[in-house]
Amino acid sequence: MGRARLKLNLGAALYCPMSNISEIDLQTADAELLEWLRIPSISTLPERKADMNRAAEWLHAKLEHIGFKSEILETAGHSVVFAERKSKTPSAPTVLLYGHYDVQPVDPENEWITPPFEPEIRDGQIFARGSTDDKGQVYAHVKALEFYLRDHRDLPINVKLLIEGEEEIGSPNLTPFVEVHKQKLECDVVVISDGSMFAPGVPTLTTGLRGLAYFEIHVQGAFKDLHSGGFGGAVANPIQALAQIIQTLRDGNGKILIPGVYDNVREVSSLEREAWSKLPFSESEFAKSVHVGELPGEPGFSVLERLWARPTLEINGIWGGFQGEGAKTVLPAKASAKVSLRLVPDQTPEEIAALVTKHISSLELPGVTVEVKFLHGGMPVLVEASSAAAQAAIRALEQAYPGKEVAITRGGGTIPVVATFKEKLNAPVLLVDYGLPDDGAHGPNERFTLECFHSGIKTSGFLYEELAKLT
Amino acid sequence: MGRARLKLNLGAALYCPMSNISEIDLQTADAELLEWLRIPSISTLPERKADMNRAAEWLHAKLEHIGFKSEILETAGHSVVFAERKSKTPSAPTVLLYGHYDVQPVDPENEWITPPFEPEIRDGQIFARGSTDDKGQVYAHVKALEFYLRDHRDLPINVKLLIEGEEEIGSPNLTPFVEVHKQKLECDVVVISDGSMFAPGVPTLTTGLRGLAYFEIHVQGAFKDLHSGGFGGAVANPIQALAQIIQTLRDGNGKILIPGVYDNVREVSSLEREAWSKLPFSESEFAKSVHVGELPGEPGFSVLERLWARPTLEINGIWGGFQGEGAKTVLPAKASAKVSLRLVPDQTPEEIAALVTKHISSLELPGVTVEVKFLHGGMPVLVEASSAAAQAAIRALEQAYPGKEVAITRGGGTIPVVATFKEKLNAPVLLVDYGLPDDGAHGPNERFTLECFHSGIKTSGFLYEELAKLT
Repeated sequence: MGRARLKLNLGAALYCPMSNISEIDLQTADAELLEWLRIPSISTLPERKADMNRAAEWLHAKLEHIGFKSEILETAGHSVVFAERKSKTPSAPTVLLYGHYDVQPVDPENEWITPPFEPEIRDGQIFARGSTDDKGQVYAHVKALEFYLRDHRDLPINVKLLIEGEEEIGSPNLTPFVEVHKQKLECDVVVISDGSMFAPGVPTLTTGLRGLAYFEIHVQGAFKDLHSGGFGGAVANPIQALAQIIQTLRDGNGKILIPGVYDNVREVSSLEREAWSKLPFSESEFAKSVHVGELPGEPGFSVLERLWARPTLEINGIWGGFQGEGAKTVLPAKASAKVSLRLVPDQTPEEIAALVTKHISSLELPGVTVEVKFLHGGMPVLVEASSAAAQAAIRALEQAYPGKEVAITRGGGTIPVVATFKEKLNAPVLLVDYGLPDDGAHGPNERFTLECFHSGIKTSGFLYEELAKLT
Repeated sequence: MGRARLKLNLGAALYCPMSNISEIDLQTADAELLEWLRIPSISTLPERKADMNRAAEWLHAKLEHIGFKSEILETAGHSVVFAERKSKTPSAPTVLLYGHYDVQPVDPENEWITPPFEPEIRDGQIFARGSTDDKGQVYAHVKALEFYLRDHRDLPINVKLLIEGEEEIGSPNLTPFVEVHKQKLECDVVVISDGSMFAPGVPTLTTGLRGLAYFEIHVQGAFKDLHSGGFGGAVANPIQALAQIIQTLRDGNGKILIPGVYDNVREVSSLEREAWSKLPFSESEFAKSVHVGELPGEPGFSVLERLWARPTLEINGIWGGFQGEGAKTVLPAKASAKVSLRLVPDQTPEEIAALVTKHISSLELPGVTVEVKFLHGGMPVLVEASSAAAQAAIRALEQAYPGKEVAITRGGGTIPVVATFKEKLNAPVLLVDYGLPDDGAHGPNERFTLECFHSGIKTSGFLYEELAKLT
């Protein structure tokens, strides 16, 4: 076949499980991914239901083609593509690869330089909705499995793929799915590639995610809106009371004031603190990127520490009274706010809900009644960097990026499926991301660099081999 | 004509200028008012423009009929009905009667027992939109003038009527109208009957109204909404900052915290305090009427004192971030609130605006920018009860309700036209109201009791005679 050998940027690496991948292999992989990206699988739009099915079937066929036993499994919403292939090594550990084939909507559509579902490669990047989030990253694994099988006639691990179609709408049917198919999904470790490395060229293992406790506060004063002239000064104002409550939740520097909230916060190890301080991160660039002059936050912690390892409390929304144009002199009957805490180990949403409720009940708020309503919670997740699974991933990244230090980071957000897998399948979850922070995942002109795609394919090979060493 | 003499509830009154009014006269007055009430003169609805004109023409014709020189004067919005008749006494003072022929919209329409523009008399009450606010009260004056002229062939005062069509939409064109027609409107005293007496059967003179300073606060954090996971803990939250600002404006007991706000507040005289404490007012009934358990307010002042004679600050509205269903983890870019102070003599909106601006600018709010925008202001108004005009009104009410103590009250609201008249025409304004507090002025089933209507006609006669004594 005259296959040109790929120049891998592997420096001194002596062995690469993917060294047989040619330029033509990669060009074929690009062309296939573009085909998948052409299917507008927007999960939130009912009119895209047929496209959702097409996208699932496309992946299903591909997985069958590379030698997996694949099936499309129904849920109450969009289907799940599940595929499986066993290693010939009887003692091989089982890895569950999770990803999603659904994509975000495309608005603002007029800001796209080329149409979101007419993928184009320019300047070494694939521009298309879903390119980095998450079809491109899923397909890096699919091609890695294909090439590995081609060149080695076997996989070093048992592989299960669970590629869902509802990640972009909050995975409403994934927990029941995992519960129903618990046995089918049994595994030793879960791998997810659905985010971004810390910076271009920085191999990254994300070891932690924050949890979430999301609630609403509803304050009621009089039974209906009153005239502020006829009642102002005599009847309590629920917006004032709500502002008062909010002021007891946190201060302007981000310190949470709810008693007990910090009790179960695990301190960041000095090792982690030091490692994070060496990451290529500039607080002033970060401030500039969101057009603010200052980054107020909990004193004594760096921005990354605050984002990754400290609980925070945000008021996500507030409303009450007159919000239209002009001056309506109403004394409102009601005011409401949405509030959420990001949690870190070893906080739990249940514990936080109890503390919040107790705290708000203890406030003296004459003339109003207050209701606190919890909407949902998510557990914080941490895979200790010293654990066998994390060490395997770190070794794989070190081999894929020889000479580069692997960034051990955390994420400030919450990916509920991570906690679901950890809890329901009792398996550690490795977040090995192949995208870049500025890929524009949910915005216009979403992109995935060819370098990320191709490195992802190769990194996956190292990862499978290192995970094979888990016992 | 065999006119049955009216039984006036005048106790020991020796003289009544309206004693010639018969039952049939009153029945005719009722029927005429019903006719006017049938015209749906809703000023805020463009599709009612023709009805607005009809309502103005109806009144214009009526005023011509009773012997006034009437005209319909254009404004940039709905027309003003202006009518005039001089007394034969050359030295007679001039009284300007102000009222309005426009009415509120009717929603919620399905709560009306009989349709809002199909007036019905039941249980001694006229049910119709506009019955008490303000067609009924205006018509009490029209009929009083008609009967007085019929029985006395002259009026004791020069009378000007200014009945506008935009009161329910904030009288946007009245100030320019008054400026343009300043000479035409020259008068010694203004009389307005467009509210309610303190309680049924309690003759009332309202001597004061609160002023207003209405502003918006806009707080900006980052340049756009951010993800609370990726930025929460590092970037300021504008809702938190807004809540913090609000907490520095007033406390939960209604005490205003803005430095200097109380500096120019005129103390309530002990005479007024005592008079108000004797009014038939129950704080617990008041609380029950709005379904609250407590009436938090500035310590050391009764509810009526707080409503009438103390400045208050209300948050009229607030908004920011996510307000929909469910849990969106946004760190909002913006938050806003509408805030207004009710002012009392000798505060001015300008002074308060300066204090608010200075105060908010002095706050330390890291990571956000704050804009304060004043929407409008209104001067507080007070006609000293000891003034000649007020004393004339009190004497009139004492004669109309012999044996009853006249309630000298104030209003907690703001009627901007009152300050306009006071300032532009340099005349005291007497608020002599004929309605009742539970007439439901802006709600469904608005009503005006026949007793109020008929007493209003008679009280007006006394009022004209007493005002004739002003020099």
